[in-house]
Amino acid sequence: MKVVALAGGVGGAKLVDGLADCLGASDLSVVVNTGDDFNFLGLRICPDLDTVCYTLAGIADPSTGWGRKDETWNALTTLEQLDAPAWFRLGDKDLGHHLDRTSCLFQGWSLSAVVEHFCQRFGIQTVILPMTDNEVATYVHTQDEKSLPFQEYFVHLRCEPKVKGFEFRGVEQSRPAPGVLTAIQEADCVIICPSNPWVSVTPILSVPGVRKALNEKLVVAVSPLIGGKAIKGPAAKMYTELGIEPSSVSVSRHYQGLISGILIDTEDEKDAKQISRLGIIPMMTNVFMRDSEDRKRLAIELLQFCESQLKGKNL
Amino acid sequence: MKVVALAGGVGGAKLVDGLADCLGASDLSVVVNTGDDFNFLGLRICPDLDTVCYTLAGIADPSTGWGRKDETWNALTTLEQLDAPAWFRLGDKDLGHHLDRTSCLFQGWSLSAVVEHFCQRFGIQTVILPMTDNEVATYVHTQDEKSLPFQEYFVHLRCEPKVKGFEFRGVEQSRPAPGVLTAIQEADCVIICPSNPWVSVTPILSVPGVRKALNEKLVVAVSPLIGGKAIKGPAAKMYTELGIEPSSVSVSRHYQGLISGILIDTEDEKDAKQISRLGIIPMMTNVFMRDSEDRKRLAIELLQFCESQLKGKNL
Repeated sequence: MKVVALAGGVGGAKLVDGLADCLGASDLSVVVNTGDDFNFLGLRICPDLDTVCYTLAGIADPSTGWGRKDETWNALTTLEQLDAPAWFRLGDKDLGHHLDRTSCLFQGWSLSAVVEHFCQRFGIQTVILPMTDNEVATYVHTQDEKSLPFQEYFVHLRCEPKVKGFEFRGVEQSRPAPGVLTAIQEADCVIICPSNPWVSVTPILSVPGVRKALNEKLVVAVSPLIGGKAIKGPAAKMYTELGIEPSSVSVSRHYQGLISGILIDTEDEKDAKQISRLGIIPMMTNVFMRDSEDRKRLAIELLQFCESQLKGKNL
Repeated sequence: MKVVALAGGVGGAKLVDGLADCLGASDLSVVVNTGDDFNFLGLRICPDLDTVCYTLAGIADPSTGWGRKDETWNALTTLEQLDAPAWFRLGDKDLGHHLDRTSCLFQGWSLSAVVEHFCQRFGIQTVILPMTDNEVATYVHTQDEKSLPFQEYFVHLRCEPKVKGFEFRGVEQSRPAPGVLTAIQEADCVIICPSNPWVSVTPILSVPGVRKALNEKLVVAVSPLIGGKAIKGPAAKMYTELGIEPSSVSVSRHYQGLISGILIDTEDEKDAKQISRLGIIPMMTNVFMRDSEDRKRLAIELLQFCESQLKGKNL
């Protein structure tokens, strides 16, 4: 079975890691959100791509999910001593990657070429694709009428401002990165990872051409909310601030018309009926991924769910 | 006594360190060569300024003379894994400084403001001035008709190409950094550190206005050659390749008309008479600086030599 996964950061990376364990290298492509990408101290930083790449390379920090394991922070210490902005945690190993990427982009490489090179050098066989090679910048509109670049909101202000809406600047003019549409077209099913629907998945869906390609496919999501709470990150907080109850039902409604099924946590059994009424098949399981066994288990269940739905479509 | 020191990298930094030990903070200014500065992986790197700053801050690596002590190399390891150019040894602590500087320059800070900020934050009381805030780039013309950026010659090619001449691109249009001419004008004497005459001191002397200001002053040099050999770096090799015998006499001739005295090593006693014939007073001592005691001893002897010459001038 050929699978495309749409992924944001930590949650997406974990599921993709499980999927990579179950599928052949040529059977899995990951399309990663780049709306979080930003410039910091002259460096081009791609947090979601890095999280996915580091996780698949087996070099991610298991305690945080992002950044590299066995990391040192000496450059950051110097930056702090010099009063430079140091709110984005730049590890030394990580920094070498940002320097290389920034330098390659400056020399005219595309982002997808930079990612492909990283994957080759770090032994990643799964195809990892940025959603686009164009610059798209997620902005968070806040209830106090500010427009914050995503990392400013997410890391610097620790998601404290209340959100009112989102903007993916540049997305209308963007084009899917080479390979994205082909991967979707060749896929048997597309999986929306348990990433933030608002700021991780919607940017990918907003790249012109992506939604149309997905309409031809079986698309299945994994809910990033369990019992109305996000496993990680501000997804639940965002739903609440936007006046929507944070729940698996709301996530399902978010993707209504796009997905035919969704994995929700057993804790959310009460939501199943409402989700079914949206025309979406819910499947209950343990959605939380504590370790690599959980990742693989969830991936297997998800792939079985996809297969059963594919069979159902064929009938 | 108010002193200005003209310095390049390691040798200059060592003597400056000794002078800083002997003189009050307001009595010593150092004018540092910036012809070696270059761009690497998008970073602006100033090797001589860094060596002087790190040495005076007490954070230089004592085993090399350049870079920082207790350094780690994790960013560089990532760069190597990604096949990025890694011939310039970027330590992690050092890298934080380059990132801050590059970012400040990009925001419109002058190089001298960046250096001043570093000195403040790292507790350096000596005034350290770049020779200019303008970009000046030293090129090495080689006997096989190449024109190499200095760090390419010095670090990447390990000084292997034979030199034919030097060019300080941009120097004619450059202006002394703020404070340079005033420091010289207010100085009782100017010391040319035991730095490479061709590529460390000549760039400073080539900044418009500097030589004229020096002509009004007592200028004394310290020979970077002992027994025809450089303590560090390619100075002796350069003299030979340019068809000049590497010796304290040649160094004296290099600075003829500018200096009134020179410290040479006792090993070069035979050169004293010839140096005197150039109208330059030689003083013999142990010029080699093994440790901080040597630095201080040499600084004291040098300052005494300057004082005696100042008295001689007054007579």
